[in-house]
Amino acid sequence: MTMTHPWEQPIPTPNAACSQRAEAHQARLTKPPGSLGRLEHLASTLAGQQGTVFPAVERVRIVVFAGDHGVCDEGVSAFTQAVTAQMVRNIAAGGAAISVLARHLHATLEVINTGTVTPLPQLPGVRAATVARGTRNLARQPAMTAAERDEALAVGDAAAQRAADAQAQLFIGGEMGIGNTTSAAAVAGALLGLPPEALVGRGTGVDDTALARKRAAVARGLARHGDARAPLGVLASLGGLEIAALTGAVLGAARRRVPFLVDGFIVSIAALIAVRHAPASAHWLHFAHRSRETGHGAVLEALNAQPLLNLGMRLGEGSGAGVAVPLMQAACRLHREMATFESAGVSDGS
Amino acid sequence: MTMTHPWEQPIPTPNAACSQRAEAHQARLTKPPGSLGRLEHLASTLAGQQGTVFPAVERVRIVVFAGDHGVCDEGVSAFTQAVTAQMVRNIAAGGAAISVLARHLHATLEVINTGTVTPLPQLPGVRAATVARGTRNLARQPAMTAAERDEALAVGDAAAQRAADAQAQLFIGGEMGIGNTTSAAAVAGALLGLPPEALVGRGTGVDDTALARKRAAVARGLARHGDARAPLGVLASLGGLEIAALTGAVLGAARRRVPFLVDGFIVSIAALIAVRHAPASAHWLHFAHRSRETGHGAVLEALNAQPLLNLGMRLGEGSGAGVAVPLMQAACRLHREMATFESAGVSDGS
Repeated sequence: MTMTHPWEQPIPTPNAACSQRAEAHQARLTKPPGSLGRLEHLASTLAGQQGTVFPAVERVRIVVFAGDHGVCDEGVSAFTQAVTAQMVRNIAAGGAAISVLARHLHATLEVINTGTVTPLPQLPGVRAATVARGTRNLARQPAMTAAERDEALAVGDAAAQRAADAQAQLFIGGEMGIGNTTSAAAVAGALLGLPPEALVGRGTGVDDTALARKRAAVARGLARHGDARAPLGVLASLGGLEIAALTGAVLGAARRRVPFLVDGFIVSIAALIAVRHAPASAHWLHFAHRSRETGHGAVLEALNAQPLLNLGMRLGEGSGAGVAVPLMQAACRLHREMATFESAGVSDGS
Repeated sequence: MTMTHPWEQPIPTPNAACSQRAEAHQARLTKPPGSLGRLEHLASTLAGQQGTVFPAVERVRIVVFAGDHGVCDEGVSAFTQAVTAQMVRNIAAGGAAISVLARHLHATLEVINTGTVTPLPQLPGVRAATVARGTRNLARQPAMTAAERDEALAVGDAAAQRAADAQAQLFIGGEMGIGNTTSAAAVAGALLGLPPEALVGRGTGVDDTALARKRAAVARGLARHGDARAPLGVLASLGGLEIAALTGAVLGAARRRVPFLVDGFIVSIAALIAVRHAPASAHWLHFAHRSRETGHGAVLEALNAQPLLNLGMRLGEGSGAGVAVPLMQAACRLHREMATFESAGVSDGS
């Protein structure tokens, strides 16, 4: 008997009839046709994804995946790897950006440790799912073994299962991992065939010297990796544990018909891996924002994505997605609660 | 004794010390410096406006000004003038876009009738402040007398006073007026010296024939008006009652240190009149979104404004501002509630 991995299972398509009925409803609301702009398309897209004419984004599930990166040995970050674990504590304690946003959204916030270099004790709000104590240095050797990658993918899939069990109407994947913009740039380079200059940015804010080291590390990793473009192969070779878990979460959410709101550069890389691996997963994605991180534009273009926001953010954690949720809520609430021309006794101009 | 009109009184400047202290606080929060992008500037700007290091946008006052436009005689709108009064009822009854948004923001929503063609009875949530039964046809004669304009300006000033009395942390001006994109385009043409083609759009969605009539009406109005650019003179000649009231509200809010969130094309025109009349009022403005209406880009450029959102909206009522409020709330909540590096025990990378 062969077991099929969860991330190899088929992905459904959204319910087109619900989308069409939602569009027809929009046309009856007391406003000039099309005047809510992208909010109208957002509502009808969510209608298809949620399988209802009146979608809602009230039950939001935010899962932050944390993991460390061996490539930090190359001197690519302004912060030490210890900060990943420190920030896991901060997120769980309510002090990080995503904690503040989740609280005000009344969202469920789960932090999953896929592998910090600094061990963490059992902490409320943190799920231990340690695959390894960080990845290996991608500039010198494959970041993960296939088995480690699969274990991390399964961590993400399980998170999507819990979200579906909780009847989440939207899944937000966030990440915390010092060094992960280096790993993400390397994955993008391999998948898109672009040079490090187009993809490597300052991440958390490195200086020019560290930026040069970062580009060199990505170039070295890409040279070592070679031309292979199989998405899950690239993921193991150049990715991170939290990026693998995010990829599993994107695929797992799509498989379970849970819309996924993509945050910034790192999560977009996971989305790119997922979409290259299983193109149908694209139907379940929304894009929150255009990050200021250098490589994000190229990745968004490859995904044909038009993010909702462009605020110059580059924080990660899922924070851009947290900021964008109220736009999706507004789209759904307007769609659901506005009067129709008929019910309000307003002449519709026809 | 000479009475000074409220809109002639001096406008204060925001508290620079509070802005600077807010910026210093931002630098201590557990995130890479600058990584919240525009949200950081938003928080420190609001700090200066509200005169506190920790601003908030929890008490929001939304005032929708309604008025009719004589220029509808030129066949410039897809809707009849009766719709203005019908929509006033719809807004007050909770069925309009701005009603839905206000409800979910827990904002105070006030509708002020500055002059609908169709008389309205006393309605809960609607304040009667009828200056005239709509304006005159700006293509043929001045839209308002100076006395009518002043009365409408005073209506807006009084609304700002009520907002200040209620300790509103943000004022949103909205509008409802069939024909008002024509009036707004004419005002923009006179103030910016641009031709109708650059400023006249489809408004609520007119066809090509009506669009041509709309351009012709604006061209005729601009020819009649001549070269005079005194802002309040342009307002009386080419504006609308609700646009005048909005101008009074912008100036009145600035005078009382209440930040004002500008919605789309129409409200931006009121902001432009206000800023040309009293440049210091610009310090109190935020811009919610870039509307799809043709002339908005030129007006935003003249105001040196970078709106928060670009969602292709063009509904009016204050709806774009309503959608943008959660971004301002997120900025303030993150600023106020995030942990500092010190309090969270996170290494700051220095």
